[in-house]
Amino acid sequence: MKQVKVGIIGFGTVGAGVADILLKNGNVLSTRTGVELRLARIADLDITTDRGVTIPAGILTTNAHELIDEVDVVVELIGGKTVAKALILEALGKGKTVVTANKALLAEYGAELFAAAEKNGADLYYEASVAGGIPIIKALREGLVANRIRRIYGILNGTCNYILTRMEAEGADFAPILADAQKLGYAEQNPSLDVDGFDTAHKTAILASLAFGEWFGLGPVHVEGIRDVSQLDLAYAAELGYKIKLLAVIKEEHGELQLRVGPTLIPKTALLGNIDGVFNGVMIEGDYVGPTLFYGRGAGRNATASAVVADLADVALNLQFGSHHRVPAFRTGKQYEKLCPMENIVSRYYLRLAVRDEPGMLAGITEALGRRRISISSVVQRETANSEGAVPLLILTHATREILIGQAIADIEKLPGVIGSAKRFRIEDI
Amino acid sequence: MKQVKVGIIGFGTVGAGVADILLKNGNVLSTRTGVELRLARIADLDITTDRGVTIPAGILTTNAHELIDEVDVVVELIGGKTVAKALILEALGKGKTVVTANKALLAEYGAELFAAAEKNGADLYYEASVAGGIPIIKALREGLVANRIRRIYGILNGTCNYILTRMEAEGADFAPILADAQKLGYAEQNPSLDVDGFDTAHKTAILASLAFGEWFGLGPVHVEGIRDVSQLDLAYAAELGYKIKLLAVIKEEHGELQLRVGPTLIPKTALLGNIDGVFNGVMIEGDYVGPTLFYGRGAGRNATASAVVADLADVALNLQFGSHHRVPAFRTGKQYEKLCPMENIVSRYYLRLAVRDEPGMLAGITEALGRRRISISSVVQRETANSEGAVPLLILTHATREILIGQAIADIEKLPGVIGSAKRFRIEDI
Repeated sequence: MKQVKVGIIGFGTVGAGVADILLKNGNVLSTRTGVELRLARIADLDITTDRGVTIPAGILTTNAHELIDEVDVVVELIGGKTVAKALILEALGKGKTVVTANKALLAEYGAELFAAAEKNGADLYYEASVAGGIPIIKALREGLVANRIRRIYGILNGTCNYILTRMEAEGADFAPILADAQKLGYAEQNPSLDVDGFDTAHKTAILASLAFGEWFGLGPVHVEGIRDVSQLDLAYAAELGYKIKLLAVIKEEHGELQLRVGPTLIPKTALLGNIDGVFNGVMIEGDYVGPTLFYGRGAGRNATASAVVADLADVALNLQFGSHHRVPAFRTGKQYEKLCPMENIVSRYYLRLAVRDEPGMLAGITEALGRRRISISSVVQRETANSEGAVPLLILTHATREILIGQAIADIEKLPGVIGSAKRFRIEDI
Repeated sequence: MKQVKVGIIGFGTVGAGVADILLKNGNVLSTRTGVELRLARIADLDITTDRGVTIPAGILTTNAHELIDEVDVVVELIGGKTVAKALILEALGKGKTVVTANKALLAEYGAELFAAAEKNGADLYYEASVAGGIPIIKALREGLVANRIRRIYGILNGTCNYILTRMEAEGADFAPILADAQKLGYAEQNPSLDVDGFDTAHKTAILASLAFGEWFGLGPVHVEGIRDVSQLDLAYAAELGYKIKLLAVIKEEHGELQLRVGPTLIPKTALLGNIDGVFNGVMIEGDYVGPTLFYGRGAGRNATASAVVADLADVALNLQFGSHHRVPAFRTGKQYEKLCPMENIVSRYYLRLAVRDEPGMLAGITEALGRRRISISSVVQRETANSEGAVPLLILTHATREILIGQAIADIEKLPGVIGSAKRFRIEDI
């Protein structure tokens, strides 16, 4: 049986998971693929800390360059955008195929990395970069290859979904739940990458590029995070039949493509609305297949390692059959006409205002909306005032343009009796 | 660009869908795969009826044998187990790769067909045979290849799911909804294949074989259909927090493998419990990836055609790269110890009895259960009696063995005051 020598650079959580699978499920993998994936080398600066996996002697090394020379395929799991990038380019430069889970690096430097792979006749695989253990890259590139993609909706960040799920379940606000999530290890000490939406944006850029045949990078992805979502918003949304999720939206309409990430109201009854906790879910709608949904763990040692090893199996088969570039790292072929500027997108909106309980308040607000032909689908006004004498006023609108809702909100915030600024989230009736 | 000549045998609904995709999305497919999938031939006995797709001149033929000789890959979409089988064997015998959606044929004659493919150095692909447009075969064989599979739960028959969904929503019984589904084209005039569970069993056999490395055929699959589910059962289940779905259960526990199909109570809150109408859903749990779920249209022209064309793309890449058998039609490698006889399976159960409203009734029934150490998790007894003076009595049990619940039911049905026979469905706490 052909043997493929695997080298892992970065012996952290996911690296340990990949090693664990190769050691424990090696025989299943050989049976299924007809190729032996041998754990040949693991490189890390720290090769003494116990990672909970018993690594045979002679495999651990601190020398990543030597590793690259010695193996058939390099798994990059150190993360970050400097050393990781240099090592991937070094490996590709030596004609070695690379498997990575590094979404930030791909989103930012994908074009450069793919060009290096192409030039050197090496493959670059990245199933683990989006939605952890869910084989979503393969589904998009192979399973749904027959389809023009119309829409992708994704819950792609487990940390945000965990926080929003707990906020709703416990009626708690963002800050204390974030603090608890940090204590429990579900959120980083610097949580910005997750809670400000950047991690979701990286994944959005990757999925959009695969679906629409152009490497976008982060530039065209509009990003809003979840810091502004309060438990009040979650409660009101629930009452109106919605959940609030940090949603990646990739949508093609009449040739115009939207790429955006933000807290979004989706119907409680939608499957995506029922994806809770650290789980991820991706809805892909193709012109022939219709709506599909893929669900699973979006992060964590074992789920991410499962995706890395799936790539390794593909690499092993390519080496076995001499079929490298069978499914290239990225193939261009633009499948849309132009990007839709954010101000032109059409959406329904959720607005939450704090207003004084005075006559004529609602009239002024509806007038500001009506002037821009924004029609209202629901209004909820509560009798209970808070300590400042303000009552919450909720408005769900019918579809309008982003620029118009922005103008209307600016006018509304100037009205006497409207206190502070308005909360605005988009609604997707999935 | 390499050209791959595609021949379709069977110009029915799905055949027309495949032709439509090749004609309409051919340029997307070429861009994505680097190979041109050319619709070369379509064979059918009837080549005059309009199928809603404009087929270029010279493609339609009534001669399937000539088609096989002329094309690179044969798509079998005539269904049935006689002519279809002969044509597939003829194509494989000539070294032509075959793509099929014929689950009944595969479930019954898979071993013979795979052997023919192997012997003749041809590939046999069947993504469309299970769960329509959902790329579940690829997910199981490639995306989740790193995992030992622990459990698969599937809602695999759109007709049954449509009937159960409508029965619950409308509070209607099986017969009138079936009749209406037949009128609307969602159920066949002879509905047995669907409603008696056999179609789901075919798909169960295929998924189980791929996950556990042995071609099972239909023999070991225990099958119960949905004719016994009444709207009363759906209503009571809903009240207790459950949905009733025709569920495929493939479960490995301590080396023992269960393969079964039957109406099953699953929690309303489970994602699978929220898959309604004609949609399919498959939950796969692997040892590393954890639970995953795949959802989409399980049947119909376009979704099924999407899966067929995904196979064609793989075939085209194999022809381009000379990598046939890269992922063989079926690879053995037994991943379980033994099949679990049905009487030994452990499950929770839902029982519905009709009893006379007399003193001591419940005591007799609980005694029959208690004698076999079956403990009760819920009991619901209604005061309203029907015209025969019977009241419904519902019992949900904790886990017990199938043989014990059968014995207990036999005893209970003999009790004076118990009218007719008991309804029994399994519960899966997904």
